[in-house]
Amino acid sequence: MDEDLHWKSAIAYARPGHITVRGYTLTDLMGRVTFSQMIWLVVTGELPSPQAGEIMDAILVSAAESGARAPAVLAARTVASCGAPIQAAVAAGALTISKYHGGAVEDCMRQLIAIREEVSSQQVPLEDACRAAVRRRLDSGERLGGFGHRLHKEDDPRQLRLFEIARATGLNEGYLDLVQAVRQALEVETGRRLPINIDGAYAALLCEIGFPPELANPLFLLSRSVGMMAHAHEEQARMRPRRYIHPTDWEYDGPAPRRLED
Amino acid sequence: MDEDLHWKSAIAYARPGHITVRGYTLTDLMGRVTFSQMIWLVVTGELPSPQAGEIMDAILVSAAESGARAPAVLAARTVASCGAPIQAAVAAGALTISKYHGGAVEDCMRQLIAIREEVSSQQVPLEDACRAAVRRRLDSGERLGGFGHRLHKEDDPRQLRLFEIARATGLNEGYLDLVQAVRQALEVETGRRLPINIDGAYAALLCEIGFPPELANPLFLLSRSVGMMAHAHEEQARMRPRRYIHPTDWEYDGPAPRRLED
Amino acid sequence: MDEDLHWKSAIAYARPGHITVRGYTLTDLMGRVTFSQMIWLVVTGELPSPQAGEIMDAILVSAAESGARAPAVLAARTVASCGAPIQAAVAAGALTISKYHGGAVEDCMRQLIAIREEVSSQQVPLEDACRAAVRRRLDSGERLGGFGHRLHKEDDPRQLRLFEIARATGLNEGYLDLVQAVRQALEVETGRRLPINIDGAYAALLCEIGFPPELANPLFLLSRSVGMMAHAHEEQARMRPRRYIHPTDWEYDGPAPRRLED
Amino acid sequence: MDEDLHWKSAIAYARPGHITVRGYTLTDLMGRVTFSQMIWLVVTGELPSPQAGEIMDAILVSAAESGARAPAVLAARTVASCGAPIQAAVAAGALTISKYHGGAVEDCMRQLIAIREEVSSQQVPLEDACRAAVRRRLDSGERLGGFGHRLHKEDDPRQLRLFEIARATGLNEGYLDLVQAVRQALEVETGRRLPINIDGAYAALLCEIGFPPELANPLFLLSRSVGMMAHAHEEQARMRPRRYIHPTDWEYDGPAPRRLED
Repeated sequence: MDEDLHWKSAIAYARPGHITVRGYTLTDLMGRVTFSQMIWLVVTGELPSPQAGEIMDAILVSAAESGARAPAVLAARTVASCGAPIQAAVAAGALTISKYHGGAVEDCMRQLIAIREEVSSQQVPLEDACRAAVRRRLDSGERLGGFGHRLHKEDDPRQLRLFEIARATGLNEGYLDLVQAVRQALEVETGRRLPINIDGAYAALLCEIGFPPELANPLFLLSRSVGMMAHAHEEQARMRPRRYIHPTDWEYDGPAPRRLED
Repeated sequence: MDEDLHWKSAIAYARPGHITVRGYTLTDLMGRVTFSQMIWLVVTGELPSPQAGEIMDAILVSAAESGARAPAVLAARTVASCGAPIQAAVAAGALTISKYHGGAVEDCMRQLIAIREEVSSQQVPLEDACRAAVRRRLDSGERLGGFGHRLHKEDDPRQLRLFEIARATGLNEGYLDLVQAVRQALEVETGRRLPINIDGAYAALLCEIGFPPELANPLFLLSRSVGMMAHAHEEQARMRPRRYIHPTDWEYDGPAPRRLED
Repeated sequence: MDEDLHWKSAIAYARPGHITVRGYTLTDLMGRVTFSQMIWLVVTGELPSPQAGEIMDAILVSAAESGARAPAVLAARTVASCGAPIQAAVAAGALTISKYHGGAVEDCMRQLIAIREEVSSQQVPLEDACRAAVRRRLDSGERLGGFGHRLHKEDDPRQLRLFEIARATGLNEGYLDLVQAVRQALEVETGRRLPINIDGAYAALLCEIGFPPELANPLFLLSRSVGMMAHAHEEQARMRPRRYIHPTDWEYDGPAPRRLED
Repeated sequence: MDEDLHWKSAIAYARPGHITVRGYTLTDLMGRVTFSQMIWLVVTGELPSPQAGEIMDAILVSAAESGARAPAVLAARTVASCGAPIQAAVAAGALTISKYHGGAVEDCMRQLIAIREEVSSQQVPLEDACRAAVRRRLDSGERLGGFGHRLHKEDDPRQLRLFEIARATGLNEGYLDLVQAVRQALEVETGRRLPINIDGAYAALLCEIGFPPELANPLFLLSRSVGMMAHAHEEQARMRPRRYIHPTDWEYDGPAPRRLED
């Protein structure tokens, strides 16, 4: 009665004494690739170029933690506060990664890829092509994602730093120029100056290194899991159980501002 | 009626245009620390030593993926197969990380720390002190964790490689010697030769670098999330929805064995 | 800096010594309404009519359990098998309730409601109006949900029984006739005889009693949580930990067939 | 290489056109047992006595909802607020059901069962046996669960009503008397008058009807899922996305107090 149950996977396999990941012996990877490079390998099937590896590292570092206001952190703390294992707290936080929390990057990537196709097929300067692409979207009521932020009204310094890092790698697939041209076109068309926000920055960089859009949310989750586990741990180590967790009325009492040594 | 709701956190905070993590400006960390170093910083409050950073990277790489038989992967695929977002698949996989899947490392760390205290307080050679510590545990029915594996009967090559990497860093806090002395003592006391398994290897290395035992499970989850997201993605990209997922009857059809270039 | 945080909820509140749910004193409800009636009250804001209460009970009973092949059950067992709390197993199972597992009811309800509006506005017999509505959908490539099943090729006895129960309550809002007319129209238009499946039956009954479509998935989850908790419990009580869970190669060894006494 | 994968389950099975649950034909159960009775059947393997069915209904009704302060509700709202499906919100809420939220009932049941065994084996009046059992626990530092509450200082009216309902069924397995004797003994031994709290009430009733202690948490989850789905739904229907959710500063604006009609 059953259908054929045999199936195939191209990711990894284990034999006694041997694990192979995407064709590489796991023990050969250990000590020679960074965790960021490993993420890329496992997820995409190939080791990243050195440039893509650097950009992945910068993205993963930048999204790991931003304080206790993030819904992912509040959900994780709520679960941790009730005495559940930290993994369960991280799982609950993971479920917040959705349309309104981290979820904009995937849509933004798809929009950039679509605009890229439109402008590539045209024999006009990037600036003009972007204005037309933006105009079409505004006319049809499509929202242009990746611009503006309710907290950071000015340029987001994370975006500036991410672009600086990406430019420094020498990689030049065109998405950094594209998102800046789109931003410029949006300002011209609407008269409003909106900075590229962090979602837009992630989208441009992930497009630049060829990351699959449908994995943008999980990548953000992977990075933010770090903050979630730290907060869940602090909650259990420092707070009384089952307290009411105020989402904004808290203060930082960690290490004073300090400089990263060279 | 309400209790005081104001609270404190030592991890991070955001002001418009500025995010501080454990005292460091986030944008200073970007491009200068690896994701592994960032994990350590966020979770423990301090940047790791170079040695600890290398060991963290090796651990995180080694646990990221081992094929589709892992319960975390099967749970993630089951959820992905029903059409849920990949984050939900990872959340379900996270919930498998428990007593019998990844959960041995924390217990093993606590046992090693306890044995370390016992042997440190004695004026006898490590070997003799370990035999006494092992004897006491066997007599009281306590299981010695971190030895033996149902699949890998011989030395686990991941354990060998992890120890090689840890030794090469020059770090020498004594836990690598300790776990090997415990293994030897266990063989002498029971007559059975059990290798250090991967849980024992993780426990020894995490003790060596001073990682908090209560975060061992979440660290494994963080690493294995990589495999979960790759499998959930492959499930949705490659398989028909809501298939019956056989836990063992599958074959690898990814890249053929290949060597890591220098 | 913060926005106004004060908010409102119309569901329930607790004062010392008193809990009020949708305006009723909780202790007055206890012993006087069934759990099914309470579900309706909490979710919709009003107590159900006796007919709606009976139909809710029948739906909740019918979806509670159908054996170990359900993805929700397999996910719950996978998590339980690793030693996690049963609640975590149920949470993992909950995440399978998605597009391809339980998720068809909501879409089916929306389609029925849309067809109902179309046919109501016309001065032609139901049969003719349904043929036109079905024809339009087939022409535009829209799938008609709620018909056919890969396992049950004949009429699903649960559907037959649900309709029998609903008819017996005397409730007659028209959705039972509608879905049967749509089924008939689909057969006439395509030449294929597809029975109303269980999703179609749930959709028709939930429309009949005015249940909100966006809560159809959670209602299925609520009912199926019963099966999930039973399976997670059996897994931990009866099986060795961390076994490989075959999705179809299992047999029932519970009580022999028996009749429900009057 | 694989172990035998064939396995057995005593809960339910489906054949084309037929589903059997614990030996009963599912369609026979529909329309004839309530959801509460079905829960009992699926979970324990037998239909409940009429008394046990009534008590189950009262418990499930009483725990379904108590307002937005419950951690389960706050976690569910946090996830719902980010745009995730309601099932994911319920899954996150489920993960709060743990040691400090709902988790006391299981421990309390086990303690009552242990005390019951102690007092049963003695030839002294219940009162005296309970004093001795309480004394032993106080001396050994064991906490007596099920008494006192931070919000409800007086008798909890839910507890009073549950006991009233249970007494009215005529069931008399002794656990209601036992928990009251333990409460009395605790007052005598400590000089403090602590009421039986809701956890103690659930524990006594579930012991009275023979419910498995290890399923007490999941049962609470099942009941509270109702409140979680209502709150997640209200959050998405009524609030702006990704708001900061204050845990206590909210007001009820639902139906005014009203009486349940006979």
